[in-house]
Amino acid sequence: MQVDLLIQARWIIPVEPAGVIHENHSLVVDDGKIINLLDTASAMQKYQPRALETLDQHVLIPGLINCHTHAAMSLLSGIADDLPLMDWLQNHIWPAEQKWVSESFVRDGTDLAIAEMLRGGTTCFNDMYFFPDIAAQQAVEHGIRANIGLIVFDFPTVWAENAEAYLSKALALHERLRHEHLISTSFAPHAPYTVSDEPLRKMLTFADELDSTIHMHVHETRHEVDEQLQKNGQTPLQRLHELGLLTPSFMAVHMTQLSADDIRFYAETGGHIVHCPESNLKLASGFCPVAACLEAGINVALGTDGAASNNDQDMLAEMRVAALLAKGVSGNASAVSAMQALQMATLNGAKALGLDDKIGSLLVGKAADVVAIDLSDVETQPVFNPLAQLVYAASRHQVSDVWVAGKRLLNKRQLTTLDLQDLRQRAAVWQQRLAGF
Amino acid sequence: MQVDLLIQARWIIPVEPAGVIHENHSLVVDDGKIINLLDTASAMQKYQPRALETLDQHVLIPGLINCHTHAAMSLLSGIADDLPLMDWLQNHIWPAEQKWVSESFVRDGTDLAIAEMLRGGTTCFNDMYFFPDIAAQQAVEHGIRANIGLIVFDFPTVWAENAEAYLSKALALHERLRHEHLISTSFAPHAPYTVSDEPLRKMLTFADELDSTIHMHVHETRHEVDEQLQKNGQTPLQRLHELGLLTPSFMAVHMTQLSADDIRFYAETGGHIVHCPESNLKLASGFCPVAACLEAGINVALGTDGAASNNDQDMLAEMRVAALLAKGVSGNASAVSAMQALQMATLNGAKALGLDDKIGSLLVGKAADVVAIDLSDVETQPVFNPLAQLVYAASRHQVSDVWVAGKRLLNKRQLTTLDLQDLRQRAAVWQQRLAGF
Repeated sequence: MQVDLLIQARWIIPVEPAGVIHENHSLVVDDGKIINLLDTASAMQKYQPRALETLDQHVLIPGLINCHTHAAMSLLSGIADDLPLMDWLQNHIWPAEQKWVSESFVRDGTDLAIAEMLRGGTTCFNDMYFFPDIAAQQAVEHGIRANIGLIVFDFPTVWAENAEAYLSKALALHERLRHEHLISTSFAPHAPYTVSDEPLRKMLTFADELDSTIHMHVHETRHEVDEQLQKNGQTPLQRLHELGLLTPSFMAVHMTQLSADDIRFYAETGGHIVHCPESNLKLASGFCPVAACLEAGINVALGTDGAASNNDQDMLAEMRVAALLAKGVSGNASAVSAMQALQMATLNGAKALGLDDKIGSLLVGKAADVVAIDLSDVETQPVFNPLAQLVYAASRHQVSDVWVAGKRLLNKRQLTTLDLQDLRQRAAVWQQRLAGF
Repeated sequence: MQVDLLIQARWIIPVEPAGVIHENHSLVVDDGKIINLLDTASAMQKYQPRALETLDQHVLIPGLINCHTHAAMSLLSGIADDLPLMDWLQNHIWPAEQKWVSESFVRDGTDLAIAEMLRGGTTCFNDMYFFPDIAAQQAVEHGIRANIGLIVFDFPTVWAENAEAYLSKALALHERLRHEHLISTSFAPHAPYTVSDEPLRKMLTFADELDSTIHMHVHETRHEVDEQLQKNGQTPLQRLHELGLLTPSFMAVHMTQLSADDIRFYAETGGHIVHCPESNLKLASGFCPVAACLEAGINVALGTDGAASNNDQDMLAEMRVAALLAKGVSGNASAVSAMQALQMATLNGAKALGLDDKIGSLLVGKAADVVAIDLSDVETQPVFNPLAQLVYAASRHQVSDVWVAGKRLLNKRQLTTLDLQDLRQRAAVWQQRLAGF
């Protein structure tokens, strides 16, 4: 049988079924989808691939899903660090954004982030930023999958002047993007302290009608929870619940402030958590109790957050830190195993986005979003366990090849849809503009 | 003036003086030592270098000092993970070591670790393992600097049968190595719970006579402290203090269990701490209160620990996790800045080893242990601050060149004293032997 692509790999970790590691198997791809996963000897008998890839030192995994980004902020990486949160936001990040964020900033910043993400094995990102139309356009142009946040604030920003305007732009953009096969959308009210009840209620009605998901920063810091408690006598989670937002279509990002009761209650709502360990550490926001959340049955996905608070979009490192930190925080060395960390970075992200029928594992019928990592470097030798080497030792520079919907976007470390020299030059221009700031 | 080597770099961070970042400067090296650091225009006028290196996208830093390794354990990377500490040790690591650790295991494992360390910018490692004679020999052979731990236990291992024998082997090895210019030694009593008072007293006498340092695991876990309290009515730190071990020649590794009183008291002794954040997280040992220790004036260095509990020897990642984790643990986003993290990974390590007259910064007169990191990758663009990109975003695969005592050991990513193919083959042989285990 003729097929588009056959990838022979030393190891394949399909994520579904959980815990399985295939040796010397092949992934068969046709028309952008996975049509089989079987031992290589049988595969070679059964299929005549138009393209054959032999990756005999590599582990093949589902594409990584970065479930919380502000992609364009890659242009701000390293502009201000090691500062107390409010100083950092009020005196550095917000003024820089207010002065410089524009369509061209978002275009160049998103492109830089897409290059970084693809080179690091990320095939889908869940974005929340200004000019989401531009982020979507750049994702389509470069062939990466994206869930685009339709951002909502109460107050004016470069994107819209008031809640009403954010919502109408959100609906228009949703309509415009609904036939893009690589793009999905979420409503993205920024945070409980920046969006009031009225626009949240309207947004919820729209989200229900459009069967859309909601992406929001929640319980990021102690300050956020305390302030709202004082003001309204409710935690942000309690308020969002009362408004009806907490459902299986809701993604709560950060969630560092959770009591045992909060965890039980949130698990019952069916809402998802997007854990951003490096950002939470860097901004000293607190520790999301990931092991307890997983134990309670909450679906926990992983994100890097924006480059101003991370400062990279490296999902391999984020997996590693998630696995390590969960052990430290829970006091249990068997908490968040390498397999669970990989699930968080793939299938759990797909579930949070409502896309697990399409991506997140190497199941037959899903899109061929696939990543190969070369374990032949001495840094990942010997290989007793490819999964352990992947999560606890491999670096993103060992990502060799990336496919999204069967299209090869990284070919032996070379990007096929982006030009590095051009990206560097555009970054340099922004650096000069911003440096004087 | 003729000199051996002149390295022109886009940025140079000498670590001493603290906080300085030079732009377009050159490091001048002769006879293995740094003889000048000045702007490139003046350097080109003043010197005729026999070798000229132009690194116009790179940041130059002092070689990283990995202050706690069990280098040969790189052969055990990924053999057992995500297990409770005692299960991991008693049912996996110790039996594997008992069966397989030998001179050839230590030779091959140390070589693998040296390759990994050099490729990641580490120019000096502080080792503690069986067959320290072999570790020293391999370091000398491959040109990397090492401080070799003269290991001491109460009980028999593959290296010696009792405390007496460990000590006499220690003295003999110290004598044999004292003229090796890349090698220094420490006494390395394994831990408070594995070495009794008598050998510790004898060792201390020897260490005083030889003006030697002491390298020991201390307060690694709550269990260690509680057990000793119950047994002897003293914490391990109190006991070591009573024995006279806690002096400016003492390196306490891990130190995750420290009260505010412990910190004050330990600071007064002048002893050093070697922080191993990834290992402490992975084994759920607890959190070393690094910010409070630095605040109290304790010199805190950094180490990776062995590859069985990390699982890599990546000092760039260790710096990043140290900086991030200290913020999370202290609740202060300005704790352990990028500069402090770099100091911990360089100068503080040199101080802990008593080698800060020789290494740890790019001061004139010190050895030319130098590392270049290429920041031109899109992952580290734009460069508002090369130090922030180095600590918070760069990967070890961006380390381009490494010199130890002026000798180039990594040349545009190519090792000059080790053969990667040979290393892979040796690792594969051990993997086969150990896999059946």
